[in-house]
Amino acid sequence: MAVKNAFYAQSGGVTAVINASACGVLQAARQHPEEIGKVYAGRNGIIGALTEDLIDTNVESEAAIGALKNTPGAAFRSCRYKLGSIHEHRAQYERLIEVFQAHDIAFFFYNGGGDSLDTAYKVSQMGAEMGYQIVCIGIPKTIDNDLPITDCSPGFGSAAKYVATSVREAAFDLAAMSRTSTQVFVLEVMGRHAGWTTAACALAADREGEAPHILLLPEVVFDEARFLAKVKEATERYGQCVIAVSEGVKGPDGEFLSASGLKDAFGHAQLGGVAPVITNLISTRFGYRCHWAVLDYLQRSARHIASETDLHQAYAVGRAAVEFAVAGKSAVMPAIRRISDAPYRWDIIDASHSEVANQERLLPPDFISADGFGVTAAARRYLAPLIVGEAYPPFKNGLPHYVKLRNVAAPKKLNTKFAV
Amino acid sequence: MAVKNAFYAQSGGVTAVINASACGVLQAARQHPEEIGKVYAGRNGIIGALTEDLIDTNVESEAAIGALKNTPGAAFRSCRYKLGSIHEHRAQYERLIEVFQAHDIAFFFYNGGGDSLDTAYKVSQMGAEMGYQIVCIGIPKTIDNDLPITDCSPGFGSAAKYVATSVREAAFDLAAMSRTSTQVFVLEVMGRHAGWTTAACALAADREGEAPHILLLPEVVFDEARFLAKVKEATERYGQCVIAVSEGVKGPDGEFLSASGLKDAFGHAQLGGVAPVITNLISTRFGYRCHWAVLDYLQRSARHIASETDLHQAYAVGRAAVEFAVAGKSAVMPAIRRISDAPYRWDIIDASHSEVANQERLLPPDFISADGFGVTAAARRYLAPLIVGEAYPPFKNGLPHYVKLRNVAAPKKLNTKFAV
Repeated sequence: MAVKNAFYAQSGGVTAVINASACGVLQAARQHPEEIGKVYAGRNGIIGALTEDLIDTNVESEAAIGALKNTPGAAFRSCRYKLGSIHEHRAQYERLIEVFQAHDIAFFFYNGGGDSLDTAYKVSQMGAEMGYQIVCIGIPKTIDNDLPITDCSPGFGSAAKYVATSVREAAFDLAAMSRTSTQVFVLEVMGRHAGWTTAACALAADREGEAPHILLLPEVVFDEARFLAKVKEATERYGQCVIAVSEGVKGPDGEFLSASGLKDAFGHAQLGGVAPVITNLISTRFGYRCHWAVLDYLQRSARHIASETDLHQAYAVGRAAVEFAVAGKSAVMPAIRRISDAPYRWDIIDASHSEVANQERLLPPDFISADGFGVTAAARRYLAPLIVGEAYPPFKNGLPHYVKLRNVAAPKKLNTKFAV
Repeated sequence: MAVKNAFYAQSGGVTAVINASACGVLQAARQHPEEIGKVYAGRNGIIGALTEDLIDTNVESEAAIGALKNTPGAAFRSCRYKLGSIHEHRAQYERLIEVFQAHDIAFFFYNGGGDSLDTAYKVSQMGAEMGYQIVCIGIPKTIDNDLPITDCSPGFGSAAKYVATSVREAAFDLAAMSRTSTQVFVLEVMGRHAGWTTAACALAADREGEAPHILLLPEVVFDEARFLAKVKEATERYGQCVIAVSEGVKGPDGEFLSASGLKDAFGHAQLGGVAPVITNLISTRFGYRCHWAVLDYLQRSARHIASETDLHQAYAVGRAAVEFAVAGKSAVMPAIRRISDAPYRWDIIDASHSEVANQERLLPPDFISADGFGVTAAARRYLAPLIVGEAYPPFKNGLPHYVKLRNVAAPKKLNTKFAV
């Protein structure tokens, strides 16, 4: 088998540990010099392939590649860009083939969530449809934890650890203040359709009565009257009420409680700001003093409090992607399979792209408590191991020391341009 | 000198390290059994004294007291409650004397910010005005860093480390997303009048062009046109713009950009939500995709990423309070004196209550850059050492393990009630 080059790129919203997957890919690829030559990284995901903006990762030192494990964001920059269907947007695929041929690329590694795995899936169809054989491996990543088949999605455990820590810490603050000041604290977390991150906030409570007292999950239609009754009950019983609310909570009309009216590049509504809406409801009705926080990007970037378990899994799926590729597998994604909850044991299997692309795995009904405002013991058993272990990055002058790669562009071989 | 009991309480907004000061007080007091008998903690600050709700700290184990160093919030619960003037609200002071006499209390330690030091100041006047001699020591605490005389306020360094880390991490996220998605990120931080916490965000940048690109300080009147021009310049030059905005920013009319209309127990306007206001300005004018976050309580509770320097100082002022008291000092506050910036060296001096109560130290003009949107090298020299060092709490099951004290009420000795 001749040595061929590889393409790796990062796509969609970033996580605290997606660069650990990059590290896994690059380190594993360097251990297979007889199959894989250079690894080119796409600058800004698939856009880097379409525009022939390829980063030569070979110029990065071993130390810099290793430091990716400790660095949040996406080292090669990400994108929100979805390929069209192979039939209706044939020019996109012709362009990919042109670029891949020019750079002798026969391996395609694409690291992302549901939308990004759709890209990987489509690229994997190029062989059959257009005669360009390429080994194509999707690598899972999303804080939303909404990918099917894989037991969890790398990135989720770290977001879960961060939000649960934040809830616990805010609850200590609120407990101190509730006598003469604030009684209600509302924390808004990400999760457009799936409530995994909101559910993870429940891990902050070790026993009945501890915060969070109420979860507002996107899987449960918001019922204002029932919610307000629950707030009153918690505040009267515990002297305080901590609420974790998903940005994606919808009312009975099917509308997001807080739609900003803006849409992202995929046409999804850009959300944010449901916390003040919820807070206003409560303070208007009961006069409780309320505070609220919106975490937004911080929950997917907080590498300083990443889950060690998550970090290991993110690295492992990166390595497994390369191992799968050199073993001749294609059109698959490394997926995490849970072997046991406690002790937590897992391994990696392969899942077909066709099964994982464009799927959203919501919280299953048996993970949601009967009243819809919390999670069950089964959910806690599932969630608990994912946040275990600390994996602090190095610090310098009091701040996390993160690597910035050189990101040197490989010389272009084509004279052509392609508009994205 | 006969053995006398002591009263200790926590007041005002909490910090990640105010319990380290409590630890310092309690550990030092236990080392002075010939001067100090029991230490009673006021449940909910001075309210505990007024209502004779005293917590017997002697029942807490050494381990529990030691664990206060690792625990955010206020272990004995805080309050926002200000004593009236000694002339106009004499009944409050008569009540304090009644409770203190009943429990043989001759030491008063009050741990708080500007409003709380006013309480300490007033209690220290009881000796001269009402003939009840009590040794009275204020202990500084506030994330706002707005106390005079002391070089910094315990609690600030940890908040500063948290916000600077958050800015750095969000900037890695934004850098990854800016090509096809978000270009502007707005982070709202606390600081009603003083911009210290907002200024600390600047530490996230090691060099020109790194985030944050713009600070909106409460000391600088918001000028919409100049601000928008700056946003445009940063976004065009760097491809992204990260903004840290103080909740207390005011427009030319002297009004907060975002006043919720609610007031806290001290009559201060309850703020929050300037980030969406700023974001909306930018997206409306330029069409940039924006994200925003509001940290609220999280920035003063994030013990998981406390500054080791701050922790040492918080503990040291607690210990110093007791040492001052047994040395016969009264009506003073332990203050931190900076000896050198680099290497950072400091010691503790005493500052008179009359000099520290009800004062707000704003950012000095020479700490604010000429254009008003950043800080100077002098500010960075001042801020840099305060965030140095990590002091991770213990973790259990993936989450910080914080102590909850037993908080057993001491038996009441009075039959009287007092309404607060």
